[in-house]
Amino acid sequence: MSNFTFRNPVKIIFGKDTISQLSKNIPAGAKVLVTYGGGSIFKNGVYDQVVAALAGFEMIEFGGIEPNPTFETLMKAVELGRAEKIDFILSVGGGSVLDGTKFISAAIPFEGGNEWENIVLGKSRYKTATPFGAVLTLPATGSEMNSGGVISRKETHEKYGMGSPLLYPQFSILDPTTTYSLPKVQIANGLADAFTHVMEQYLTYPVNALIQDKFAEGVLKTLIEVAPKVMHDQTNYEDMSNFMWAATVALNGWISLGVPSDWATHQIGHELTALHGIDHARTLAVVLPHLMRYKMDNKKAKMIQYAKEVWALNGTDDELVEAAIQKTTEFYESLGIPTKASAYGIGEETVQEIKKRFTDRKVKYGEKSDIDAAATEAILRMSIA
Amino acid sequence: MSNFTFRNPVKIIFGKDTISQLSKNIPAGAKVLVTYGGGSIFKNGVYDQVVAALAGFEMIEFGGIEPNPTFETLMKAVELGRAEKIDFILSVGGGSVLDGTKFISAAIPFEGGNEWENIVLGKSRYKTATPFGAVLTLPATGSEMNSGGVISRKETHEKYGMGSPLLYPQFSILDPTTTYSLPKVQIANGLADAFTHVMEQYLTYPVNALIQDKFAEGVLKTLIEVAPKVMHDQTNYEDMSNFMWAATVALNGWISLGVPSDWATHQIGHELTALHGIDHARTLAVVLPHLMRYKMDNKKAKMIQYAKEVWALNGTDDELVEAAIQKTTEFYESLGIPTKASAYGIGEETVQEIKKRFTDRKVKYGEKSDIDAAATEAILRMSIA
Repeated sequence: MSNFTFRNPVKIIFGKDTISQLSKNIPAGAKVLVTYGGGSIFKNGVYDQVVAALAGFEMIEFGGIEPNPTFETLMKAVELGRAEKIDFILSVGGGSVLDGTKFISAAIPFEGGNEWENIVLGKSRYKTATPFGAVLTLPATGSEMNSGGVISRKETHEKYGMGSPLLYPQFSILDPTTTYSLPKVQIANGLADAFTHVMEQYLTYPVNALIQDKFAEGVLKTLIEVAPKVMHDQTNYEDMSNFMWAATVALNGWISLGVPSDWATHQIGHELTALHGIDHARTLAVVLPHLMRYKMDNKKAKMIQYAKEVWALNGTDDELVEAAIQKTTEFYESLGIPTKASAYGIGEETVQEIKKRFTDRKVKYGEKSDIDAAATEAILRMSIA
Repeated sequence: MSNFTFRNPVKIIFGKDTISQLSKNIPAGAKVLVTYGGGSIFKNGVYDQVVAALAGFEMIEFGGIEPNPTFETLMKAVELGRAEKIDFILSVGGGSVLDGTKFISAAIPFEGGNEWENIVLGKSRYKTATPFGAVLTLPATGSEMNSGGVISRKETHEKYGMGSPLLYPQFSILDPTTTYSLPKVQIANGLADAFTHVMEQYLTYPVNALIQDKFAEGVLKTLIEVAPKVMHDQTNYEDMSNFMWAATVALNGWISLGVPSDWATHQIGHELTALHGIDHARTLAVVLPHLMRYKMDNKKAKMIQYAKEVWALNGTDDELVEAAIQKTTEFYESLGIPTKASAYGIGEETVQEIKKRFTDRKVKYGEKSDIDAAATEAILRMSIA
């Protein structure tokens, strides 16, 4: 394995009835900006629990952060936070609210202007951020235990990842019972998202990192095991607990230490969301199986390992590589998630637009920096064929 | 799984040639107390690397911290640290030096006196500790990424665990090349120690914690896979890297979240070290197989899972339980570590002394609090039979 440095200071508070612990995890006397999304927290009782737990704190609210949170919306929260001189931000919701909150956290104390370029595109090495915590209501993105986020811009149909060591939540409260009323499509998306996060960090080339590989395989096997259960009954506490914790460790850094990462599927997927508004997780499902086929030669060793260790298959190398693609495709489809971009009406025009963007940006994604504009065109063509 | 709270803030710096990163991880201008053991760091080049990296810092040394670090020795370091008004402690060595350093860290600023009772036995809720970091030279105890330690007292032949959230290292540097010159017996002990740490947190009863179980199994399988390799050649970088990282994650909290833990093997083993000076890891090997047999009924489900998942065995439940004990015994023996206390000349007298201590202390160890004095007597009798 390669040299690595790792530090993840997030405090995880996991389990039933843990939202009540909010008050002892926010600095006494803090003026708190509570951020949330479309209002599901009013229906599932989470808002009431948060308000009860924050009795004694001055609380300001900012709702309406959308899935794929936009710079335009988030800047309104930044202005509110600055005007109200808030001390702490509490994200209540899923990964989109939390990703948006990370941007708000960085932007509120930032005095250099042009927050899109400086904070989202990372041109500034900002030195402070407003502290924040999270109540997570959707297992999916892993944002609750990492320091990254993904922000979209409506104006230009762009979507970019951002991050800083300053943007770890102070704490994240994960109560699996908050997920019981999620729409089924969000459960499916969460499973697909977490699964793909692991694949991005695992399905590259072997570097003899035994712990990292076995942990990654353990997360994949857990997701595969719980997926049909939580799709059938999302009110089983044990199953939802396993799903929720799997989604967190899928992207909290533990499985990626000293190993190569891919992330090309995410980069291509972000364009499909930016251009067509397709749910993030669903864009991953229309890219990864085709990227696996496109890179089947240089991902061969890991694809064989994946077929054997994760899916318990045997066969010739070629059979295992083919099975790896097939099983991955079937996993997404089992969640009701298509694996062809054509299922969303996407055609050659979008392929060419993304090719053009990647050509302009001179991108080279993937663990071997071999996913450029031409490779992306080839992968997307398979997805619309 | 049960509710849990988790936060592990240790910064891990892993890999070749990382000792040079010391200077940027210790506060500028700090007066540093460097703690070490019997002097192996002078032979393997680690001392020279540390001195070079600390150029620019005022440095005081305290050597001679023994395996199973004693209160008596450590209090001398505490007096030195107080007299010299040091700002930071750097532990250079294995788990014993680091455990000792944790005590020193807590004791230096402590003003309440009676450090044995207040800090080791935990009667005081001390509020500060001198910050410290580590250069680890021996994969074994996991102390590099947790907040606990074990301290012995020569005077009374006692050995106790201690800990506090204040006692996480600020950083730990893990350079696998520092282990190349370790005595073979220390490699063997390190493998046995790390293996047993996982068993203490895994071999209890099932609570359907999929991630935790799969991670624990992954660490065990990694140790089983690398053990013969590192015993044969401890200068293979990849193998030593896998061993070193496995030993860290075996006791950094990741595998124990929300699951029951046993730790009775350690408690009994500590007595064998305290009374007879047997290496810590070796005491575990003469307890665990017999404890497994003693508790084979109430550990049955996990023993079957262990036999299947870790050792890839099949058979009837009874066959798998028996195989679980047999494989565990063979693992220790493969390292040249005996699994009978009688191998060390221990007999009935020691059994009765430990029984008396546990009776006096009214102990109830284990995940079901069923390892009392009588149970301990029964387990140790099997080990001397």
